[in-house]
Amino acid sequence: MIDPHSTFEIDPWKLREAVLNLDDLAQSESVFALSNGHIGLRGNLDEGEPSFLPGTYLNAFWESRPLPYAEGGYGYPEAGQTIVNVTNGKIIRLLVDDSPFDIRYGELQSHERTLDFRDGVLRREAIWRSPAGATVRVTSHRLVSFTQRAVAAIHYEVEPLDTSARLVVQSELVTNEPHRAESKDPRAAAALEAPLAAEEFFGSDTRAVLVHSTKGSGLRAGAAMDHIVEGPDNTGFHPAETWEDLGRLTVTSTVEPGESLRIVKFLAYGWSSRRSVPAVRDQVSAALAEARHTGWEGLLEAQREYLDHFWEQADVELDGDAELQQALRFALFHTLQAGARGENRAIAAKGLTGSGYEGHSFWDTESYVLPVLTYTAPRASAAALRWRRDTLGPARERAQTLGLKGAVFPWRTISGGECSAYWPAGTAAFHLGADIAGAVCRHQAATGDVEFERDTAIELLVETARMWRSLGHHDGVGNFRIDGVTGPDEYSALADNNVYTNLMAQLNLRAAADIVHRHPDRARELGADEEEAASWRDAAKAMLIVYDEELRVHPQSEGYTEHSEWDFSKTGADQYPLMLHFPYFDIYRKQVTKQPDLVMAMFARGDAFTDEEKARNFDYYERLTVRDSSLSACVQAVIAAEVGHLELAYDYFGEAALMDLADLEHNTKDGLHIASLAGAWLVAVAGFGGMRDHDGELSFSPRLPERLTRLAFGISIRGRHLRVEATHTEISYWLLEGEPLELRHFGRPVTVREAKLVLPAGPPLNPGEPPSQPPGRAPRRRRPD
Amino acid sequence: MIDPHSTFEIDPWKLREAVLNLDDLAQSESVFALSNGHIGLRGNLDEGEPSFLPGTYLNAFWESRPLPYAEGGYGYPEAGQTIVNVTNGKIIRLLVDDSPFDIRYGELQSHERTLDFRDGVLRREAIWRSPAGATVRVTSHRLVSFTQRAVAAIHYEVEPLDTSARLVVQSELVTNEPHRAESKDPRAAAALEAPLAAEEFFGSDTRAVLVHSTKGSGLRAGAAMDHIVEGPDNTGFHPAETWEDLGRLTVTSTVEPGESLRIVKFLAYGWSSRRSVPAVRDQVSAALAEARHTGWEGLLEAQREYLDHFWEQADVELDGDAELQQALRFALFHTLQAGARGENRAIAAKGLTGSGYEGHSFWDTESYVLPVLTYTAPRASAAALRWRRDTLGPARERAQTLGLKGAVFPWRTISGGECSAYWPAGTAAFHLGADIAGAVCRHQAATGDVEFERDTAIELLVETARMWRSLGHHDGVGNFRIDGVTGPDEYSALADNNVYTNLMAQLNLRAAADIVHRHPDRARELGADEEEAASWRDAAKAMLIVYDEELRVHPQSEGYTEHSEWDFSKTGADQYPLMLHFPYFDIYRKQVTKQPDLVMAMFARGDAFTDEEKARNFDYYERLTVRDSSLSACVQAVIAAEVGHLELAYDYFGEAALMDLADLEHNTKDGLHIASLAGAWLVAVAGFGGMRDHDGELSFSPRLPERLTRLAFGISIRGRHLRVEATHTEISYWLLEGEPLELRHFGRPVTVREAKLVLPAGPPLNPGEPPSQPPGRAPRRRRPD
Repeated sequence: MIDPHSTFEIDPWKLREAVLNLDDLAQSESVFALSNGHIGLRGNLDEGEPSFLPGTYLNAFWESRPLPYAEGGYGYPEAGQTIVNVTNGKIIRLLVDDSPFDIRYGELQSHERTLDFRDGVLRREAIWRSPAGATVRVTSHRLVSFTQRAVAAIHYEVEPLDTSARLVVQSELVTNEPHRAESKDPRAAAALEAPLAAEEFFGSDTRAVLVHSTKGSGLRAGAAMDHIVEGPDNTGFHPAETWEDLGRLTVTSTVEPGESLRIVKFLAYGWSSRRSVPAVRDQVSAALAEARHTGWEGLLEAQREYLDHFWEQADVELDGDAELQQALRFALFHTLQAGARGENRAIAAKGLTGSGYEGHSFWDTESYVLPVLTYTAPRASAAALRWRRDTLGPARERAQTLGLKGAVFPWRTISGGECSAYWPAGTAAFHLGADIAGAVCRHQAATGDVEFERDTAIELLVETARMWRSLGHHDGVGNFRIDGVTGPDEYSALADNNVYTNLMAQLNLRAAADIVHRHPDRARELGADEEEAASWRDAAKAMLIVYDEELRVHPQSEGYTEHSEWDFSKTGADQYPLMLHFPYFDIYRKQVTKQPDLVMAMFARGDAFTDEEKARNFDYYERLTVRDSSLSACVQAVIAAEVGHLELAYDYFGEAALMDLADLEHNTKDGLHIASLAGAWLVAVAGFGGMRDHDGELSFSPRLPERLTRLAFGISIRGRHLRVEATHTEISYWLLEGEPLELRHFGRPVTVREAKLVLPAGPPLNPGEPPSQPPGRAPRRRRPD
Repeated sequence: MIDPHSTFEIDPWKLREAVLNLDDLAQSESVFALSNGHIGLRGNLDEGEPSFLPGTYLNAFWESRPLPYAEGGYGYPEAGQTIVNVTNGKIIRLLVDDSPFDIRYGELQSHERTLDFRDGVLRREAIWRSPAGATVRVTSHRLVSFTQRAVAAIHYEVEPLDTSARLVVQSELVTNEPHRAESKDPRAAAALEAPLAAEEFFGSDTRAVLVHSTKGSGLRAGAAMDHIVEGPDNTGFHPAETWEDLGRLTVTSTVEPGESLRIVKFLAYGWSSRRSVPAVRDQVSAALAEARHTGWEGLLEAQREYLDHFWEQADVELDGDAELQQALRFALFHTLQAGARGENRAIAAKGLTGSGYEGHSFWDTESYVLPVLTYTAPRASAAALRWRRDTLGPARERAQTLGLKGAVFPWRTISGGECSAYWPAGTAAFHLGADIAGAVCRHQAATGDVEFERDTAIELLVETARMWRSLGHHDGVGNFRIDGVTGPDEYSALADNNVYTNLMAQLNLRAAADIVHRHPDRARELGADEEEAASWRDAAKAMLIVYDEELRVHPQSEGYTEHSEWDFSKTGADQYPLMLHFPYFDIYRKQVTKQPDLVMAMFARGDAFTDEEKARNFDYYERLTVRDSSLSACVQAVIAAEVGHLELAYDYFGEAALMDLADLEHNTKDGLHIASLAGAWLVAVAGFGGMRDHDGELSFSPRLPERLTRLAFGISIRGRHLRVEATHTEISYWLLEGEPLELRHFGRPVTVREAKLVLPAGPPLNPGEPPSQPPGRAPRRRRPD
């Protein structure tokens, strides 16, 4: 576990690792990963080894693998999809007077890495004394371009510090890197053995190109590199050589102290499921030419400009907790990296930072990541939802397989096919359809993007509404029931009338009916009309929302509150996460909650609960929620803040924001928890900022925990850029640009313009004693000493 | 599908196949299988080919195989068990003037096979003209001895019919026979490739022995053969030769018409998990010596005597339906074969007639097969329950893994380890524990066997009661709830308070409390006392039995009747069984029943329902029950008869009894449905005979359907042999031997002695119109024309 206090220095805009600790290498590969949402490079060392998991990913480039079942069943998916570690272009090996530069040998005098959130560059500086006694400074700067999505680049420099050194640099493209041993943790990925078959390779001068394809999924990827080499006059290189799984440029130079050998390495990647070998080869060659034309400095400048623009609108400032200020920017930076240039591809649970969960996307995308991107990078949010639209084909087929109308989206997938091999937690988690619908509605309301509404929103809403209408049924007294489904809480399954599911389905059905009414022409093309819409409205109106009159709380699903409570007193601290130590059968049938379910409903459908219900429900479920999911803390924080438990919310905030920097779930090595990082933004903005957007109506009720003296954040809203600043006493709203904006401040309608509107903070809430959590499962306290 | 009207001739005591139809070969291998519960020989042709599935089984001789999971989970079993096709000793190949005797070549002039239920011999006679023109009669008689459990024998004879023939007979032991292709049907078995490793082989004179062991499970099996050869003077043989996987005796003879070559082949089998190669070798050699000493005629005579004794007590006579008379004896014969000499081993779902379900045992044993054996072959019933007792070790471990007290028996197993890879239908089906307890109680009441009570019953009852006590919990109002379990109906899963489960658990808890009270000394050894027993009685008393007040029926589980009903109108006739055409998620959440669940509860716990409840419940579930399980028809028949729908019961009777003879589920090829065959007896005795034994109180209420003019059956009861005979007007009871017996005749206590007690039949019931079944799922009508 990385202790952020020792491994990383606290800095508002950077993540700096001052020493290299081999035990932290695996985690550091994830936290230092660079990505633009299309290419992802794990923070592996330039020289390739040591490494925990070499990782170079292209969004949606996957290989199929059979899903085995000891006992199969109808409709079980037969093949899964696994993200491929494609050709590694990060590798730059160095020989110093015959000694390979390897930090495990010789003497590493200093080693520092810094990820700068403002220019998106990963910088490394190592001073190393070779076993033979030569000391060199190795500096590398690495970026994955936000502006040229097919491009990454590395600026690599070596300087002898005490004596002349003979240097050999091998800059490589390496395909089919050996993989590490398989893990037993189901959350880690299945490893693929040499998944890529060579199709073409050639090198000339400083350039090399390799084209490979996968054997099962039939996808084709090209990787190319070019170089600019600068050094003393004696510096030379062999023209790039290539083999099936290797491209190499070898540079030799004898360098004196005071001189240096500098290499700029441009990398270009591309893939296609349709284009030919020559087409893919040319595509990456062209991207490479453009990168070289832009040059290292040009790429760097564009990167800085892109991020300046982003931070100007989206930065969240926290005064009073420097650690969380850093963690929050880290979180927002990685959330952006995950989706920035996805362009109609999925945003995976791990982004492109590791192979955890096999590179799959889940409901996290729509329920955790898109709420952030919709308000900070709306083009990325639209692109992610267009990806869902583009996968309506397989989703309609899946619905048919399952005997349903409309579309059933996959619980986990890369390209749209269902990859979940455990149906009670996969297929049965139908709420995903409404999560997508919810994200569509939010995006639509936040952007007012009519093109999106017509080309994407309506089709997604109509097909998911059809699914709900066919999944539920009216019972004898007219209630619309949705039986036998799994809600967000993965420690329950196959229950009737899950409140989150039913409320989200209600939202989905209503939104579909509304959009059909607004766009009758597009609706007609989808075969939908007012008659069908009326049946959706009926179902929404009759939706059964179960309530336990005795306890005066909402059971998360029908009957939940009658089940026995998990015996926490007999559960050891080392028995979490429960799913690795107890059988599903027992977990499912008891009152124990992995992650917010009813509490998630109170966030996503806060309009459906009274304040009193929220307070009582939150209390009830806090006792039962073990937070065995990284999706937990942020949502608990948001509702804790809403019901007035600000210090508890603040504790959860720390957990969500530090999930990966502190490696709280001990699996950051497999990739970052993008949803939890996005969740940190949600805590700041929806939690302490009190932002809600039910039915597109924007409202704020900022309330800060004691230690935070100031919170400021910005959101994009219908073409405007709104900034909000909150202290314990005052709330300010202003627009960076755009037309006046109506919103609610503690329930009161106000109009915000470019001039700062300063309003008094709302009245304090008196929620009473904070609720307790299961023994040992309380979040780490962040209160002031 | 075998049409019993054409393939088999109707005969009260025999199953005769007059012609060989290759399309029926697979099914015929199962229906002509011979077994004594220890050795099982499929009805393969002597010459080995053609065959669908060569099968030679030893009870509980299995190989392990990995159980793969695309997504694993805590407590999932890692290895399964598969019954092994051991060394095939049935093979006798014949060469007639250089032509191998193979019914697919030359001309098969006649071919007849007969299984005689009275002497347990499978007889075959074929007249075959070889491609070269020689005609021979081949006769074989095969038996698996009930009296010498390690022994089988074949009497084989060849007679040339028209001209002298040069005959070569190769009598063999063949190990690791090639297996057939895998089936996609989950109910068929996974095939094992060459599972046996040779350990020793030797032959001398007419004898050969092969010893093999499995690679994974480490079990060792020996197979041995010896021969008596009789023929014309020129007859000779090579001393038996052996190789790793082959033993062979080759006999040569030139035989004239009017002469014959006769070979008696004795087979001996044995296996052990502990004994050495020499010990196993000697064990089978000794059994072989004893068989040869007894001789063919001796074995035949003992077989006849054994069966005479069985039929004398257990025969069921039906007047008015010759087809069912035959089917019922067939059923009873195979039920006996499955368990007769199991001797503390399991009785598998397919007996030893095929590799379906991988040779596993399920709850069928206790709930369907043992009710028959308890009353017809009580030693076999006790042995099967002692097998459960012997597996308490792994069952206690399983309980611990699952976080429960006591013992959790495996849903499917051969040797006691859980082999179910799909926990919602395996682990969660806890009712198995109570089914075992129910069988224990029944056996105990029916035999009064105190030794069994002390050495087996108490331990099984105590450990299952402990399981229930820890599985359930008292809710806020004091009800004892059992949540999240799966009842008998495999089209529902993970529901709360399954009525069958709760009622059976209640019986189990009470019985355990009672036996602890009766045997305080044995209880102490098990750590049980009156305090613990009191907690079981409390739980039993507080057991929640859910009831739908509105519909006035029992939901099979809590909430069941609120679920939407399966849309039968949209389900095609070719979409059954539903599980092969619809996803579990949809099947589980709707009102559709694969097999009796609540109706099963009304049979097993008939004392817990009023007559009116039985009638209403039966009506309700008939509409929803699709009978996609061979466990269905017999139980529906029993309750149909009880509530007065005698003609419907009669229809179901036909289905249960003809399950395999008519191949109603198209998978008799994988082995017989022993539970359905046993179920045919249940229909006769518990259905039309109205026999019940709740709390050990024996009662009869015989009522016959119109076409049956007379039903007579016998049961063993507490050392007595009771016969019951029913016509439409009179019921007679008498004892073949033993002390006077108290029982109830239509509720009225009577005492039965050796002299026939003739009583009038009960009053007719007027149940009204018979209920309907889902469209297309009504049983085939058997009413008189």
